[in-house]
Amino acid sequence: MKKVAIVGATGYTGQELVRLLLQHDQVEIKALTSQSYVGSKFSNVYPNAARFTDLLCSEGDIEKLSTEVDVIFVALPHGHAAKAITKKVLDNCRVIDLGADFRLKNPEDYKTWYQLEHANPALLGGAVYGLPELNRADIATARLIANPGCYATCSILTIAPLLHSNLIDETSIIIDAKSGVTGAGRSLTLGVHFDEVNESLKAYKVASHRHTPEIEQALQAVATHPITLTFTPHLIPMNRGILVTAYANLKSGVKISDVNAAYKARYGNEYFIRLYNDANDNDLSNAGVSGGKSSEGKSNEAYTLPETRWVKGSNFCDIGVTIDERNNRLIAIGAIDNLVKGAAGQAIQNMNVLFGFDECTGLKQMPIFPA
Amino acid sequence: MKKVAIVGATGYTGQELVRLLLQHDQVEIKALTSQSYVGSKFSNVYPNAARFTDLLCSEGDIEKLSTEVDVIFVALPHGHAAKAITKKVLDNCRVIDLGADFRLKNPEDYKTWYQLEHANPALLGGAVYGLPELNRADIATARLIANPGCYATCSILTIAPLLHSNLIDETSIIIDAKSGVTGAGRSLTLGVHFDEVNESLKAYKVASHRHTPEIEQALQAVATHPITLTFTPHLIPMNRGILVTAYANLKSGVKISDVNAAYKARYGNEYFIRLYNDANDNDLSNAGVSGGKSSEGKSNEAYTLPETRWVKGSNFCDIGVTIDERNNRLIAIGAIDNLVKGAAGQAIQNMNVLFGFDECTGLKQMPIFPA
Amino acid sequence: MKKVAIVGATGYTGQELVRLLLQHDQVEIKALTSQSYVGSKFSNVYPNAARFTDLLCSEGDIEKLSTEVDVIFVALPHGHAAKAITKKVLDNCRVIDLGADFRLKNPEDYKTWYQLEHANPALLGGAVYGLPELNRADIATARLIANPGCYATCSILTIAPLLHSNLIDETSIIIDAKSGVTGAGRSLTLGVHFDEVNESLKAYKVASHRHTPEIEQALQAVATHPITLTFTPHLIPMNRGILVTAYANLKSGVKISDVNAAYKARYGNEYFIRLYNDANDNDLSNAGVSGGKSSEGKSNEAYTLPETRWVKGSNFCDIGVTIDERNNRLIAIGAIDNLVKGAAGQAIQNMNVLFGFDECTGLKQMPIFPA
Amino acid sequence: MKKVAIVGATGYTGQELVRLLLQHDQVEIKALTSQSYVGSKFSNVYPNAARFTDLLCSEGDIEKLSTEVDVIFVALPHGHAAKAITKKVLDNCRVIDLGADFRLKNPEDYKTWYQLEHANPALLGGAVYGLPELNRADIATARLIANPGCYATCSILTIAPLLHSNLIDETSIIIDAKSGVTGAGRSLTLGVHFDEVNESLKAYKVASHRHTPEIEQALQAVATHPITLTFTPHLIPMNRGILVTAYANLKSGVKISDVNAAYKARYGNEYFIRLYNDANDNDLSNAGVSGGKSSEGKSNEAYTLPETRWVKGSNFCDIGVTIDERNNRLIAIGAIDNLVKGAAGQAIQNMNVLFGFDECTGLKQMPIFPA
Repeated sequence: MKKVAIVGATGYTGQELVRLLLQHDQVEIKALTSQSYVGSKFSNVYPNAARFTDLLCSEGDIEKLSTEVDVIFVALPHGHAAKAITKKVLDNCRVIDLGADFRLKNPEDYKTWYQLEHANPALLGGAVYGLPELNRADIATARLIANPGCYATCSILTIAPLLHSNLIDETSIIIDAKSGVTGAGRSLTLGVHFDEVNESLKAYKVASHRHTPEIEQALQAVATHPITLTFTPHLIPMNRGILVTAYANLKSGVKISDVNAAYKARYGNEYFIRLYNDANDNDLSNAGVSGGKSSEGKSNEAYTLPETRWVKGSNFCDIGVTIDERNNRLIAIGAIDNLVKGAAGQAIQNMNVLFGFDECTGLKQMPIFPA
Repeated sequence: MKKVAIVGATGYTGQELVRLLLQHDQVEIKALTSQSYVGSKFSNVYPNAARFTDLLCSEGDIEKLSTEVDVIFVALPHGHAAKAITKKVLDNCRVIDLGADFRLKNPEDYKTWYQLEHANPALLGGAVYGLPELNRADIATARLIANPGCYATCSILTIAPLLHSNLIDETSIIIDAKSGVTGAGRSLTLGVHFDEVNESLKAYKVASHRHTPEIEQALQAVATHPITLTFTPHLIPMNRGILVTAYANLKSGVKISDVNAAYKARYGNEYFIRLYNDANDNDLSNAGVSGGKSSEGKSNEAYTLPETRWVKGSNFCDIGVTIDERNNRLIAIGAIDNLVKGAAGQAIQNMNVLFGFDECTGLKQMPIFPA
Repeated sequence: MKKVAIVGATGYTGQELVRLLLQHDQVEIKALTSQSYVGSKFSNVYPNAARFTDLLCSEGDIEKLSTEVDVIFVALPHGHAAKAITKKVLDNCRVIDLGADFRLKNPEDYKTWYQLEHANPALLGGAVYGLPELNRADIATARLIANPGCYATCSILTIAPLLHSNLIDETSIIIDAKSGVTGAGRSLTLGVHFDEVNESLKAYKVASHRHTPEIEQALQAVATHPITLTFTPHLIPMNRGILVTAYANLKSGVKISDVNAAYKARYGNEYFIRLYNDANDNDLSNAGVSGGKSSEGKSNEAYTLPETRWVKGSNFCDIGVTIDERNNRLIAIGAIDNLVKGAAGQAIQNMNVLFGFDECTGLKQMPIFPA
Repeated sequence: MKKVAIVGATGYTGQELVRLLLQHDQVEIKALTSQSYVGSKFSNVYPNAARFTDLLCSEGDIEKLSTEVDVIFVALPHGHAAKAITKKVLDNCRVIDLGADFRLKNPEDYKTWYQLEHANPALLGGAVYGLPELNRADIATARLIANPGCYATCSILTIAPLLHSNLIDETSIIIDAKSGVTGAGRSLTLGVHFDEVNESLKAYKVASHRHTPEIEQALQAVATHPITLTFTPHLIPMNRGILVTAYANLKSGVKISDVNAAYKARYGNEYFIRLYNDANDNDLSNAGVSGGKSSEGKSNEAYTLPETRWVKGSNFCDIGVTIDERNNRLIAIGAIDNLVKGAAGQAIQNMNVLFGFDECTGLKQMPIFPA
């Protein structure tokens, strides 16, 4: 039984960690820290937790916690984690940082995109980017894991096999991403006011979102050249879910069978990745009924591409691809629950790798629908 | 390991049974029947189920199934179950009917409210109304369990202690109930078209909803007189959740402490009922922060009354009460997830009682938020 | 051409005034004041206004404005208006206050419900409660109009005819009200965060909402005795709309025809009130198709009761009634757009009465659907 | 006063025509036809219309209507209009077809994309594509106007100036489009069931949507070469609104000032197009506050790009552009209300051109927010 602490437990990511860790039979939550609710029962801040934990929210003394637990999940705004996670902390215990501070290898990139001098650049070298489907071996031996961003997780997983198998023009990648509002966190801004979000739709941080360098860094590791892609996030009036629609020009002669083979080769054994397009994969192809918008009213085509509703509450990343034959362009679509595979679930997956647990421990809930 | 079948598995209630039963470690699903999808993989009808079940949807021969499993969950439209559930079926296995056919004891009431002659009135006597918090002993020995309606579950649990302790004027009960749209099922009507429901609000079946006699029948069992109450359902633009706001005139001299004591006495040991109002109950009182709508912008009052978001995905019924001191009227508020405590979860709770499992088996997930 | 100013133009009520006044051909907006956006173009704060006004947001010097315009609309938080609206201001121009400060006649009631000493009690006597359907004559000659609260408008209009015609037990009135989130305003609180509101439902300020005394004061004016009713507001995950479900015990012998006659007598000539229940009224009875939630899937019952979608963007109050014959209880349902008939639209209606314009001027837009 | 008829008045597009035409002071609605509601009052089918029209829904004899009115708006499913609109009809009156039947010039394209032989190919030559911002002169003299599709309108307007000024690589155009659910119409399919759409997100008809050839045909008219672009529609859980995010590689040396100049040149005098990006354009640049999703919680950046909420209920198309400097890619964003500029509003704009009315007649309502 491993002991865990969550630093920053009262944000959306923190409370989702609580929900998932409570279903994990190999760990025990020892501390929940919070800036705003010190002394309050966690279940009074989030009444859904009543019956599940009696812990009070405590102050976030990470060094002290590091002597008491086996792993600390850090869910703090960027800048804060870089200060709080010291060498001493890492000597004492493992740390999984769900923020952005240890994701970019180059402190200059951090400065460029976050407009902030990194407080602890010496630790960047030892930090491992925690995307198990790409980095499993390194994660197993890490002291400090940088849990990927939500958009980054979905984008990287959706595109990586295409680069790995060298199927696309690497200069042509465009990612049009759409996220539910929990991705913006629980802080109060006009941008998350119900009536400003509901029944509307917008792009934001166009050509400037901070997950861009993170996606490029991870994709470069499987590509033959540096990648400079276009990334456009959009805000969708729903609570949870990210859908990534990625575009790239196929190299000459590449067929859909090559594309499917690439995904199958890369992800065929990955529990948390469900592929829609391989006709040999029986999971999600060829049969069901479509929720499609059809002017004919027919509703029995197959579900051939991911939708966020099918992953909600789960750690799955669903992926499907189509080729626009008229111009030889690939359209790859990925879907995740931003709070699970995009944050808390992936952090637990990383912890499972770290401690040698079965990688799916505590993460085998069927997605909840309609929710 | 008990064997189970779900008849009518591709409606919302049926698929929620699949989700929850898959997390239950004492049962194995042997068959999923469907009218519309015979021969399709269940996971092609509901892609969230990919990785969880390879079962095909089969035809619904209940008699045959009854020889192969220990319990059949029936999730059919009313009228159909009354025909399908025969004495022979009940001789072979237990049946939990999630529809309305076996809830009303008097076949005349059934005829009045459902405009239908009951097809199998001889079985009504042996059917047990499956609300474990009120009927646990009878459920344990039943062959046929009539799982309560979603509105009925929330209404009865919210009001019963008041009658049991004789605190209210029994002629004054008004239930103003609000439900998410999954309560209307998956069938296609203009009334569930997204654009007809979204961003609107209505009352429907005013003074004529079929859960009315079911609520009255159950409350009469704990009251001193017959109950004729007013029940008004409303449709809310959200997927899941029921909130019941119940009103009744307090008997002279009754105080809030009497009311709280009544709920505590009745529900103090009930895992699935969480009380908000008892100051001695530490679960959900006195501290947290409010999501309240406050013209002052203050946001740190306590959560003192249930909200549907805190029960989503779970089998809980949250209850809180307030007295309007100016006119001595009681306002009791209950919240459930209509697909869980209002349908599939309660059915599993009944099964647990039936088979002597711990009543919470498979039902201990923390509610998911925000979802 | 009358000149108008809006004090507090950048809240939801203020900007709705802008939208509606721009469609009014007898007035010209001269000033838009704002606390937060002084110096900004209004159309940069609300880009929907681009092409419609070039006004900058200015500081809110009401006394100065009162010398420049014919009427000032004040949309400030309570407490502020009571200070800003002085005798001098009223000597210069007419004022329509959309806040709560001049609604309650008795300054003691104000103190009790708003926890605040009224700053200007001497003006209360001259203030007229601006519900034209009840107070038209007084409004025409007022200097200061207290525009009713959104819940109050819908509640009073829904119930008044019953009291006027003496049809109900005056001690039995219960108002279960439901509102969209714009009713909470644009200020940032956790309670209006998208993910805290969306897909959930709650009651709030139970037995303590400040519109309660306002409703009682107005209903008493048409009743035979003081009224002490129960009022329970609920927050609904949608932008606009209020639905009031009001309950009362009918006096002995009262029939549905009496009830319909009472509404017809009171509202037969009111443009902004549309009645559902009178079979002699051809507007909204007996024919159409229902959006009803029906287990049979039939979708061609009549629309017999109001729904908020049918009034959106308009100044209508739709009203319908049903009797629960089993216990002789009346259920009256009213629907308004809280920002129009519940705020800005009614303020303009009051202005029309004040200046002797046709009462519908600028308010004849057909409700927008689906929106 | 021109006389108009609407054939297919009870779909979403038809009833939006009713709403807007009722605010047009130069026309009178003489007939509303419907397949499903013949004999019903229109205001019983859409109760928002009560007080606005007493018309009954009638059968759709277009030839007869053509002798009684000046213009017929046809809002029928594709295939039906091609049969109903005959030469005889066009000899009698003008026709504005809101469906797809007369949009594609080449009947072979129609057959390819609609899987249907065109019933009336002889009329295709005389039909004018009704996008006034591109085709004003031709519209003025047309007998038959093919009103553009909703996605097509927004896509074409967003991209055309780039081609007109020859600023982009014409082989690189990708349109990632997002639509609210009213775009799918009022017909009942599983795909528009509230619980299948709400809180989810999906792409559909990827690389196969029928607006693709329509967009290409219109863009080719302003381009130097044939265009074969990629078009991906997505379904968003909201009622109204389309957001188009278009990507293209800039030609070498093109600067943001060139891009802004191109839009300004093309649209500077267009009332219904509001540009965000030109610093010299005062409408929507540089000042306001952002609803942006910002990890810092800062909320006072400018609104620099369109959002669907700012056009709701109006005939505007808002457009803004950004360059991704790192790879010289242009991102152009357009927003419309799909039922207004994407259907009924544009049809009225076309009628205004046709009859020589001021082009904005009946279309000058300020967008409604929050709605």
